[in-house]
Amino acid sequence: QDAVSSEGDDSKEYDAETQKALEDIDACQNEIDALNEQASEEILKVEQKYNKLRKPFFEKRNDLIQKIPNFWVTAFVNHPQVSALLTEEDEECLHYLTKLEVEEFEDIKSGYRIKFFFDDNPFFENEVIEKEFHLGSSGDPASKSSEIKWKEGMDLTKRNKEITKQGRKRLHEEPRSFFFWFTDNTDASCDDIAEVIKDDMWPNPLQYYLVPDVEVEENGLDDD
Amino acid sequence: QDAVSSEGDDSKEYDAETQKALEDIDACQNEIDALNEQASEEILKVEQKYNKLRKPFFEKRNDLIQKIPNFWVTAFVNHPQVSALLTEEDEECLHYLTKLEVEEFEDIKSGYRIKFFFDDNPFFENEVIEKEFHLGSSGDPASKSSEIKWKEGMDLTKRNKEITKQGRKRLHEEPRSFFFWFTDNTDASCDDIAEVIKDDMWPNPLQYYLVPDVEVEENGLDDD
Ligand SMILES: [Ca+2]
Ligand SMILES: [Ca+2]
Ligand SMILES: [Mg+2]
Ligand SMILES: [Mg+2]
Repeated sequence: QDAVSSEGDDSKEYDAETQKALEDIDACQNEIDALNEQASEEILKVEQKYNKLRKPFFEKRNDLIQKIPNFWVTAFVNHPQVSALLTEEDEECLHYLTKLEVEEFEDIKSGYRIKFFFDDNPFFENEVIEKEFHLGSSGDPASKSSEIKWKEGMDLTKRNKEITKQGRKRLHEEPRSFFFWFTDNTDASCDDIAEVIKDDMWPNPLQYYLVPDVEVEENGLDDD
Repeated sequence: QDAVSSEGDDSKEYDAETQKALEDIDACQNEIDALNEQASEEILKVEQKYNKLRKPFFEKRNDLIQKIPNFWVTAFVNHPQVSALLTEEDEECLHYLTKLEVEEFEDIKSGYRIKFFFDDNPFFENEVIEKEFHLGSSGDPASKSSEIKWKEGMDLTKRNKEITKQGRKRLHEEPRSFFFWFTDNTDASCDDIAEVIKDDMWPNPLQYYLVPDVEVEENGLDDD
Protein backbone atom coordinates (compact mmCIF):
# COMPACT_ATOMS: atom_id res chain seq x y z
CA GLN A 1 0.00 0.00 0.00
CA ASP A 2 2.89 2.29 0.83
CA ALA A 3 5.59 1.06 -1.51
CA VAL A 4 6.44 4.47 -2.92
CA SER A 5 5.62 6.78 -0.04
CA SER A 6 7.87 9.82 -0.08
CA GLU A 7 8.33 9.51 3.67
CA GLY A 8 10.16 6.80 5.55
CA ASP A 9 13.61 5.33 5.69
CA ASP A 10 13.97 3.39 2.51
CA SER A 11 12.71 5.86 -0.06
CA LYS A 12 15.28 7.10 -2.52
CA GLU A 13 15.05 10.70 -3.62
CA TYR A 14 13.13 10.93 -6.90
CA ASP A 15 12.24 14.10 -8.77
CA ALA A 16 8.64 15.23 -8.32
CA GLU A 17 7.45 13.89 -11.68
CA THR A 18 8.98 10.46 -11.16
CA GLN A 19 7.65 10.35 -7.61
CA LYS A 20 4.13 11.09 -8.89
CA ALA A 21 4.42 8.43 -11.62
CA LEU A 22 5.64 5.87 -9.06
CA GLU A 23 2.70 6.63 -6.77
CA ASP A 24 0.29 6.22 -9.70
CA ILE A 25 1.95 2.93 -10.69
CA ASP A 26 1.57 1.80 -7.11
CA ALA A 27 -2.14 2.64 -7.19
CA CYS A 28 -2.53 0.70 -10.47
CA GLN A 29 -0.64 -2.17 -8.94
CA ASN A 30 -3.00 -2.26 -5.98
CA GLU A 31 -5.96 -2.56 -8.37
CA ILE A 32 -4.21 -5.35 -10.27
CA ASP A 33 -3.36 -7.16 -7.03
CA ALA A 34 -6.97 -6.94 -5.86
CA LEU A 35 -8.20 -8.36 -9.19
CA ASN A 36 -5.63 -11.18 -9.00
CA GLU A 37 -6.88 -12.01 -5.53
CA GLN A 38 -10.50 -12.08 -6.70
CA ALA A 39 -9.59 -14.23 -9.71
CA SER A 40 -7.77 -16.73 -7.49
CA GLU A 41 -10.76 -16.96 -5.18
CA GLU A 42 -13.19 -17.54 -8.05
CA ILE A 43 -10.95 -20.19 -9.60
CA LEU A 44 -10.56 -21.90 -6.24
CA LYS A 45 -14.34 -22.04 -5.92
CA VAL A 46 -14.68 -23.61 -9.37
CA GLU A 47 -12.02 -26.20 -8.51
CA GLN A 48 -13.68 -27.00 -5.19
CA LYS A 49 -17.05 -27.37 -6.89
CA TYR A 50 -15.68 -29.82 -9.44
CA ASN A 51 -13.66 -31.70 -6.83
CA LYS A 52 -16.96 -32.37 -5.06
CA LEU A 53 -18.66 -33.39 -8.32
CA ARG A 54 -15.79 -35.70 -9.33
CA LYS A 55 -15.44 -37.33 -5.91
CA PRO A 56 -18.22 -39.98 -6.17
CA PHE A 57 -16.86 -41.08 -9.56
CA PHE A 58 -13.33 -41.40 -8.17
CA GLU A 59 -14.71 -43.45 -5.26
CA LYS A 60 -16.72 -45.70 -7.54
CA ARG A 61 -13.70 -46.06 -9.80
CA ASN A 62 -11.55 -47.10 -6.84
CA ASP A 63 -14.09 -49.75 -5.83
CA LEU A 64 -14.14 -51.11 -9.38
CA ILE A 65 -10.34 -51.08 -9.66
CA GLN A 66 -10.09 -53.28 -6.56
CA LYS A 67 -11.98 -56.00 -8.44
CA ILE A 68 -9.18 -56.22 -10.98
CA PRO A 69 -6.09 -58.14 -9.90
CA ASN A 70 -2.84 -56.21 -10.33
CA PHE A 71 -4.54 -53.15 -11.77
CA TRP A 72 -2.13 -50.62 -10.28
CA VAL A 73 1.10 -52.53 -10.77
CA THR A 74 0.09 -53.04 -14.40
CA ALA A 75 -0.70 -49.36 -14.88
CA PHE A 76 2.63 -48.41 -13.23
CA VAL A 77 4.63 -50.83 -15.38
CA ASN A 78 2.92 -49.54 -18.52
CA HIS A 79 3.47 -45.87 -17.69
CA PRO A 80 6.62 -44.58 -19.43
CA GLN A 81 7.90 -42.34 -16.62
CA VAL A 82 6.75 -44.36 -13.61
CA SER A 83 7.99 -47.58 -15.17
CA ALA A 84 11.48 -46.11 -15.57
CA LEU A 85 11.59 -45.85 -11.77
CA LEU A 86 10.71 -49.45 -10.96
CA THR A 87 13.13 -52.17 -9.95
CA GLU A 88 12.12 -55.82 -10.15
CA GLU A 89 11.64 -55.82 -6.38
CA ASP A 90 9.46 -52.69 -6.58
CA GLU A 91 7.25 -54.50 -9.07
CA GLU A 92 7.00 -57.50 -6.77
CA CYS A 93 6.01 -55.24 -3.89
CA LEU A 94 3.55 -53.18 -5.97
CA HIS A 95 1.52 -56.33 -6.66
CA TYR A 96 0.19 -55.67 -3.14
CA LEU A 97 -0.89 -52.10 -3.97
CA THR A 98 -4.69 -52.27 -3.92
CA LYS A 99 -5.70 -48.63 -3.93
CA LEU A 100 -4.29 -45.25 -4.87
CA GLU A 101 -5.78 -41.91 -3.85
CA VAL A 102 -4.83 -38.35 -4.67
CA GLU A 103 -6.35 -35.77 -2.34
CA GLU A 104 -6.05 -32.08 -3.12
CA PHE A 105 -6.24 -29.96 0.01
CA GLU A 106 -9.33 -27.81 0.51
CA ASP A 107 -7.25 -24.75 -0.34
CA ILE A 108 -5.95 -26.38 -3.50
CA LYS A 109 -2.92 -24.15 -3.86
CA SER A 110 -1.63 -25.33 -0.53
CA GLY A 111 -0.94 -28.88 -1.65
CA TYR A 112 -1.95 -32.47 -2.15
CA ARG A 113 -1.41 -35.94 -0.76
CA ILE A 114 -0.89 -39.26 -2.55
CA LYS A 115 -2.02 -42.31 -0.56
CA PHE A 116 -0.92 -45.85 -1.41
CA PHE A 117 -2.95 -48.66 0.21
CA PHE A 118 -1.32 -52.09 0.46
CA ASP A 119 -2.58 -55.59 1.23
CA ASP A 120 -0.67 -57.65 3.81
CA ASN A 121 2.71 -58.13 2.18
CA PRO A 122 6.19 -59.55 2.86
CA PHE A 123 7.90 -56.13 2.63
CA PHE A 124 6.47 -53.77 5.27
CA GLU A 125 3.87 -53.45 8.02
CA ASN A 126 2.08 -50.25 6.87
CA GLU A 127 -1.38 -50.66 5.38
CA VAL A 128 -1.16 -47.21 3.86
CA ILE A 129 1.79 -44.95 3.05
CA GLU A 130 1.38 -41.28 2.10
CA LYS A 131 3.52 -38.67 0.42
CA GLU A 132 2.33 -35.11 0.93
CA PHE A 133 3.23 -31.88 -0.86
CA HIS A 134 2.60 -28.46 0.67
CA LEU A 135 4.14 -25.04 0.97
CA GLY A 136 6.76 -25.06 3.74
CA SER A 137 7.22 -22.33 6.33
CA SER A 138 9.46 -20.41 3.89
CA GLY A 139 6.68 -20.46 1.28
CA ASP A 140 8.63 -22.90 -0.90
CA PRO A 141 7.26 -26.33 -1.86
CA ALA A 142 8.06 -29.03 0.68
CA SER A 143 7.13 -32.69 1.00
CA LYS A 144 7.01 -35.37 3.65
CA SER A 145 6.36 -39.08 3.50
CA SER A 146 5.22 -41.82 5.88
CA GLU A 147 7.92 -43.76 7.62
CA ILE A 148 7.85 -47.24 6.12
CA LYS A 149 8.02 -50.02 8.73
CA TRP A 150 10.10 -52.49 6.72
CA LYS A 151 10.05 -56.13 7.72
CA GLU A 152 13.45 -57.58 8.61
CA GLY A 153 15.83 -57.63 5.63
CA MET A 154 13.14 -56.32 3.29
CA ASP A 155 14.00 -52.60 3.15
CA LEU A 156 13.88 -52.00 -0.61
CA THR A 157 15.76 -48.71 -0.37
CA LYS A 158 18.72 -50.48 1.31
CA ARG A 159 18.65 -53.62 -0.77
CA ASN A 160 18.73 -51.59 -3.90
CA LYS A 161 21.66 -49.48 -2.68
CA GLU A 162 23.70 -52.60 -1.99
CA ILE A 163 22.99 -53.99 -5.40
CA THR A 164 24.02 -50.69 -6.92
CA LYS A 165 27.25 -50.51 -4.92
CA GLN A 166 28.27 -53.97 -5.99
CA GLY A 167 27.55 -52.92 -9.55
CA ARG A 168 25.57 -56.07 -10.24
CA LYS A 169 23.01 -54.17 -12.25
CA ARG A 170 22.01 -50.65 -13.21
CA LEU A 171 25.62 -49.73 -13.88
CA HIS A 172 25.93 -46.17 -15.19
CA GLU A 173 22.45 -45.32 -13.91
CA GLU A 174 21.68 -43.31 -10.84
CA PRO A 175 20.12 -45.49 -8.17
CA ARG A 176 16.38 -45.33 -8.54
CA SER A 177 13.47 -47.17 -7.09
CA PHE A 178 9.88 -46.43 -6.34
CA PHE A 179 10.83 -46.36 -2.65
CA PHE A 180 13.81 -44.02 -3.17
CA TRP A 181 11.36 -41.66 -4.82
CA PHE A 182 8.81 -42.17 -2.04
CA THR A 183 11.26 -41.47 0.77
CA ASP A 184 13.16 -38.65 -0.97
CA ASN A 185 11.96 -35.25 0.23
CA THR A 186 15.00 -33.21 -0.78
CA ASP A 187 13.52 -31.36 -3.76
CA ALA A 188 9.74 -31.08 -3.54
CA SER A 189 9.61 -28.32 -6.16
CA CYS A 190 10.86 -30.72 -8.86
CA ASP A 191 9.13 -34.00 -8.01
CA ASP A 192 8.31 -35.11 -11.56
CA ILE A 193 7.04 -38.53 -10.45
CA ALA A 194 4.57 -37.06 -7.96
CA GLU A 195 3.30 -34.70 -10.65
CA VAL A 196 2.95 -37.53 -13.15
CA ILE A 197 0.96 -39.55 -10.60
CA LYS A 198 -1.26 -36.59 -9.71
CA ASP A 199 -1.76 -35.08 -13.18
CA ASP A 200 -1.54 -38.08 -15.50
CA MET A 201 -1.93 -41.42 -13.72
CA TRP A 202 -4.70 -40.43 -11.29
CA PRO A 203 -6.90 -38.60 -13.85
CA ASN A 204 -6.95 -41.66 -16.12
CA PRO A 205 -5.21 -44.86 -14.96
CA LEU A 206 -7.32 -47.04 -17.26
CA GLN A 207 -5.38 -45.91 -20.33
CA TYR A 208 -2.17 -47.29 -18.74
CA TYR A 209 -3.77 -50.53 -17.61
CA LEU A 210 -5.17 -51.05 -21.12
CA VAL A 211 -2.00 -50.56 -23.08
CA PRO A 212 -2.43 -52.05 -26.56
CA ASP A 213 -0.85 -55.43 -27.09
CA VAL A 214 2.10 -54.06 -29.04
CA GLU A 215 3.75 -57.41 -29.70
CA VAL A 216 0.77 -58.74 -31.60
CA GLU A 217 0.59 -55.63 -33.74
CA GLU A 218 4.33 -55.59 -34.34
CA ASN A 219 4.24 -59.20 -35.42
CA GLY A 220 1.61 -58.31 -37.96
CA LEU A 221 -0.88 -60.84 -36.68
CA ASP A 222 -3.71 -58.35 -37.11
CA ASP A 223 -5.68 -58.86 -40.25
CA ASP A 224 -6.65 -55.27 -41.05
CA GLN B 1 -15.56 -43.90 -25.38
CA ASP B 2 -14.69 -47.42 -26.48
CA ALA B 3 -11.51 -48.07 -24.56
CA VAL B 4 -12.63 -51.41 -23.17
CA SER B 5 -14.98 -52.67 -25.85
CA SER B 6 -14.83 -56.46 -26.02
CA GLU B 7 -14.79 -56.28 -29.81
CA GLY B 8 -11.98 -55.05 -32.01
CA ASP B 9 -8.37 -55.90 -32.71
CA ASP B 10 -6.47 -54.80 -29.66
CA SER B 11 -8.62 -56.07 -26.81
CA LYS B 12 -6.91 -58.63 -24.65
CA GLU B 13 -8.99 -61.52 -23.40
CA TYR B 14 -10.25 -60.76 -19.90
CA ASP B 15 -12.52 -62.96 -17.80
CA ALA B 16 -16.16 -61.83 -17.72
CA GLU B 17 -15.91 -60.21 -14.28
CA THR B 18 -12.79 -58.22 -15.15
CA GLN B 19 -14.29 -57.22 -18.49
CA LYS B 20 -17.41 -55.91 -16.72
CA ALA B 21 -15.30 -53.98 -14.16
CA LEU B 22 -13.21 -52.46 -16.96
CA GLU B 23 -16.32 -51.32 -18.79
CA ASP B 24 -17.67 -49.76 -15.59
CA ILE B 25 -14.32 -48.02 -14.96
CA ASP B 26 -14.46 -46.72 -18.51
CA ALA B 27 -17.95 -45.31 -17.88
CA CYS B 28 -16.72 -43.63 -14.66
CA GLN B 29 -13.75 -42.29 -16.55
CA ASN B 30 -16.02 -40.74 -19.18
CA GLU B 31 -17.94 -38.92 -16.42
CA ILE B 32 -14.67 -37.70 -14.88
CA ASP B 33 -13.38 -36.55 -18.28
CA ALA B 34 -16.60 -34.64 -18.94
CA LEU B 35 -16.34 -32.92 -15.54
CA ASN B 36 -12.69 -32.05 -16.18
CA GLU B 37 -13.69 -30.52 -19.49
CA GLN B 38 -16.44 -28.46 -17.83
CA ALA B 39 -14.09 -27.34 -15.06
CA SER B 40 -11.47 -26.22 -17.61
CA GLU B 41 -14.08 -24.24 -19.51
CA GLU B 42 -15.33 -22.50 -16.36
CA ILE B 43 -11.81 -21.66 -15.24
CA LEU B 44 -10.97 -20.34 -18.69
CA LYS B 45 -14.02 -18.07 -18.51
CA VAL B 46 -12.95 -16.72 -15.11
CA GLU B 47 -9.44 -16.08 -16.42
CA GLN B 48 -10.74 -14.35 -19.52
CA LYS B 49 -13.06 -12.20 -17.42
CA TYR B 50 -10.21 -11.06 -15.17
CA ASN B 51 -7.84 -10.56 -18.11
CA LYS B 52 -10.39 -8.06 -19.44
CA LEU B 53 -10.75 -6.39 -16.04
CA ARG B 54 -6.99 -6.17 -15.53
CA LYS B 55 -6.23 -4.89 -19.03
CA PRO B 56 -6.96 -1.15 -18.53
CA PHE B 57 -4.77 -1.14 -15.41
CA PHE B 58 -1.91 -2.81 -17.26
CA GLU B 59 -2.26 -0.24 -20.05
CA LYS B 60 -2.32 2.66 -17.61
CA ARG B 61 0.65 1.16 -15.80
CA ASN B 62 2.60 0.91 -19.05
CA ASP B 63 1.87 4.58 -19.83
CA LEU B 64 3.10 5.59 -16.38
CA ILE B 65 6.20 3.40 -16.60
CA GLN B 66 7.22 5.19 -19.79
CA LYS B 67 7.49 8.42 -17.83
CA ILE B 68 10.23 6.93 -15.69
CA PRO B 69 13.70 6.80 -17.24
CA ASN B 70 15.30 3.36 -17.18
CA PHE B 71 12.38 1.74 -15.38
CA TRP B 72 12.70 -1.66 -17.07
CA VAL B 73 16.47 -1.92 -17.09
CA THR B 74 16.45 -1.07 -13.38
CA ALA B 75 13.78 -3.69 -12.64
CA PHE B 76 15.72 -6.29 -14.68
CA VAL B 77 19.00 -5.49 -12.93
CA ASN B 78 17.32 -5.73 -9.53
CA HIS B 79 15.56 -9.02 -10.28
CA PRO B 80 17.63 -11.94 -8.92
CA GLN B 81 17.04 -14.40 -11.77
CA VAL B 82 16.84 -11.96 -14.68
CA SER B 83 19.88 -10.08 -13.44
CA ALA B 84 21.96 -13.28 -13.46
CA LEU B 85 21.38 -13.41 -17.22
CA LEU B 86 22.59 -9.91 -18.06
CA THR B 87 25.97 -9.01 -19.52
CA GLU B 88 27.23 -5.42 -19.34
CA GLU B 89 26.33 -4.99 -23.02
CA ASP B 90 22.82 -6.37 -22.38
CA GLU B 91 22.38 -3.72 -19.71
CA GLU B 92 23.56 -1.01 -22.06
CA CYS B 93 21.07 -2.20 -24.68
CA LEU B 94 18.19 -2.58 -22.19
CA HIS B 95 18.42 1.13 -21.39
CA TYR B 96 16.49 1.50 -24.67
CA LEU B 97 13.69 -0.87 -23.53
CA THR B 98 10.68 1.42 -23.09
CA LYS B 99 7.81 -1.01 -22.78
CA LEU B 100 7.17 -4.63 -21.88
CA GLU B 101 3.93 -6.48 -22.54
CA VAL B 102 2.80 -10.00 -21.71
CA GLU B 103 -0.21 -11.16 -23.71
CA GLU B 104 -1.95 -14.39 -22.80
CA PHE B 105 -3.73 -15.91 -25.78
CA GLU B 106 -7.52 -15.92 -25.77
CA ASP B 107 -7.45 -19.64 -25.09
CA ILE B 108 -5.03 -19.16 -22.23
CA LYS B 109 -3.80 -22.73 -22.15
CA SER B 110 -2.53 -22.35 -25.68
CA GLY B 111 0.19 -19.87 -24.81
CA TYR B 112 1.48 -16.35 -24.33
CA ARG B 113 3.70 -13.77 -25.94
CA ILE B 114 6.24 -11.38 -24.37
CA LYS B 115 6.77 -8.15 -26.31
CA PHE B 116 9.79 -5.90 -25.79
CA PHE B 117 9.50 -2.37 -27.23
CA PHE B 118 12.74 -0.45 -27.87
CA ASP B 119 13.61 3.16 -28.62
CA ASP B 120 15.95 3.87 -31.52
CA ASN B 121 19.21 2.31 -30.40
CA PRO B 122 22.75 1.55 -31.61
CA PHE B 123 22.22 -2.26 -31.45
CA PHE B 124 19.38 -3.30 -33.75
CA GLU B 125 16.71 -1.97 -36.10
CA ASN B 126 13.61 -3.62 -34.59
CA GLU B 127 11.20 -1.41 -32.66
CA VAL B 128 9.65 -4.44 -31.03
CA ILE B 129 10.87 -7.98 -30.53
CA GLU B 130 8.61 -10.82 -29.37
CA LYS B 131 9.10 -14.25 -27.88
CA GLU B 132 6.04 -16.47 -28.09
CA PHE B 133 5.18 -19.71 -26.29
CA HIS B 134 2.54 -22.09 -27.57
CA LEU B 135 1.80 -25.78 -27.92
CA GLY B 136 3.56 -27.14 -31.00
CA SER B 137 2.03 -29.54 -33.51
CA SER B 138 3.09 -32.48 -31.32
CA GLY B 139 1.22 -30.97 -28.36
CA ASP B 140 4.48 -30.16 -26.56
CA PRO B 141 5.44 -26.59 -25.59
CA ALA B 142 7.29 -24.73 -28.33
CA SER B 143 8.56 -21.18 -28.68
CA LYS B 144 9.63 -18.80 -31.41
CA SER B 145 11.22 -15.39 -31.33
CA SER B 146 11.52 -12.39 -33.64
CA GLU B 147 14.58 -12.26 -35.82
CA ILE B 148 16.69 -9.42 -34.48
CA LYS B 149 18.05 -7.13 -37.20
CA TRP B 150 21.42 -6.33 -35.62
CA LYS B 151 23.28 -3.26 -36.76
CA GLU B 152 26.74 -3.95 -38.18
CA GLY B 153 29.09 -5.37 -35.56
CA MET B 154 26.50 -5.03 -32.81
CA ASP B 155 25.12 -8.60 -32.62
CA LEU B 156 25.20 -9.17 -28.87
CA THR B 157 24.84 -12.92 -29.20
CA LYS B 158 28.01 -13.08 -31.35
CA ARG B 159 30.02 -10.53 -29.44
CA ASN B 160 29.39 -12.36 -26.25
CA LYS B 161 30.47 -15.67 -27.78
CA GLU B 162 33.78 -14.17 -28.87
CA ILE B 163 34.43 -12.73 -25.46
CA THR B 164 33.67 -16.09 -23.92
CA LYS B 165 35.95 -17.95 -26.35
CA GLN B 166 38.85 -15.69 -25.61
CA GLY B 167 38.20 -16.31 -21.93
CA ARG B 168 38.37 -12.61 -21.11
CA LYS B 169 35.50 -12.88 -18.68
CA ARG B 170 32.86 -15.29 -17.44
CA LEU B 171 35.34 -18.14 -17.23
CA HIS B 172 33.77 -21.28 -15.76
CA GLU B 173 30.29 -19.97 -16.55
CA GLU B 174 28.10 -21.11 -19.36
CA PRO B 175 27.67 -18.36 -21.94
CA ARG B 176 24.56 -16.41 -21.05
CA SER B 177 23.03 -13.19 -22.17
CA PHE B 178 19.58 -11.74 -22.40
CA PHE B 179 19.81 -12.18 -26.17
CA PHE B 180 20.98 -15.81 -25.97
CA TRP B 181 17.87 -16.43 -23.90
CA PHE B 182 15.71 -14.44 -26.31
CA THR B 183 16.92 -16.30 -29.41
CA ASP B 184 17.10 -19.76 -27.83
CA ASN B 185 14.03 -21.85 -28.69
CA THR B 186 15.48 -25.27 -28.01
CA ASP B 187 13.63 -26.08 -24.78
CA ALA B 188 10.39 -24.16 -24.46
CA SER B 189 9.07 -26.47 -21.73
CA CYS B 190 11.80 -25.31 -19.34
CA ASP B 191 12.15 -21.61 -20.10
CA ASP B 192 12.59 -20.36 -16.54
CA ILE B 193 13.35 -16.79 -17.59
CA ALA B 194 10.17 -16.50 -19.66
CA GLU B 195 8.17 -17.84 -16.72
CA VAL B 196 9.82 -15.41 -14.32
CA ILE B 197 8.99 -12.52 -16.66
CA LYS B 198 5.40 -13.68 -17.11
CA ASP B 199 4.60 -14.77 -13.56
CA ASP B 200 6.79 -12.53 -11.41
CA MET B 201 8.12 -9.48 -13.27
CA TRP B 202 4.99 -8.61 -15.26
CA PRO B 203 2.50 -9.00 -12.37
CA ASN B 204 4.50 -6.54 -10.26
CA PRO B 205 7.56 -4.83 -11.76
CA LEU B 206 7.40 -1.93 -9.30
CA GLN B 207 8.76 -4.09 -6.48
CA TYR B 208 11.91 -4.71 -8.53
CA TYR B 209 12.31 -1.09 -9.58
CA LEU B 210 11.96 0.00 -5.93
CA VAL B 211 14.54 -2.26 -4.38
CA PRO B 212 15.55 -0.96 -0.94
CA ASP B 213 18.83 0.87 -0.66
CA VAL B 214 20.74 -2.05 0.80
CA GLU B 215 24.08 -0.29 1.13
CA VAL B 216 22.69 2.46 3.32
CA GLU B 217 21.01 -0.05 5.58
CA GLU B 218 24.08 -2.30 5.71
CA ASN B 219 26.20 0.67 6.72
CA GLY B 220 23.84 1.29 9.59
CA LEU B 221 23.11 4.87 8.59
CA ASP B 222 19.42 4.46 9.38
CA ASP B 223 18.45 5.70 12.78
CA ASP B 224 15.68 3.26 13.68
CA1 LIG C 1 16.85 3.62 3.94
CA1 LIG D 1 -9.27 -54.80 -29.62
MG1 LIG E 1 -4.08 -55.17 -7.02
MG1 LIG F 1 13.14 3.33 -20.18
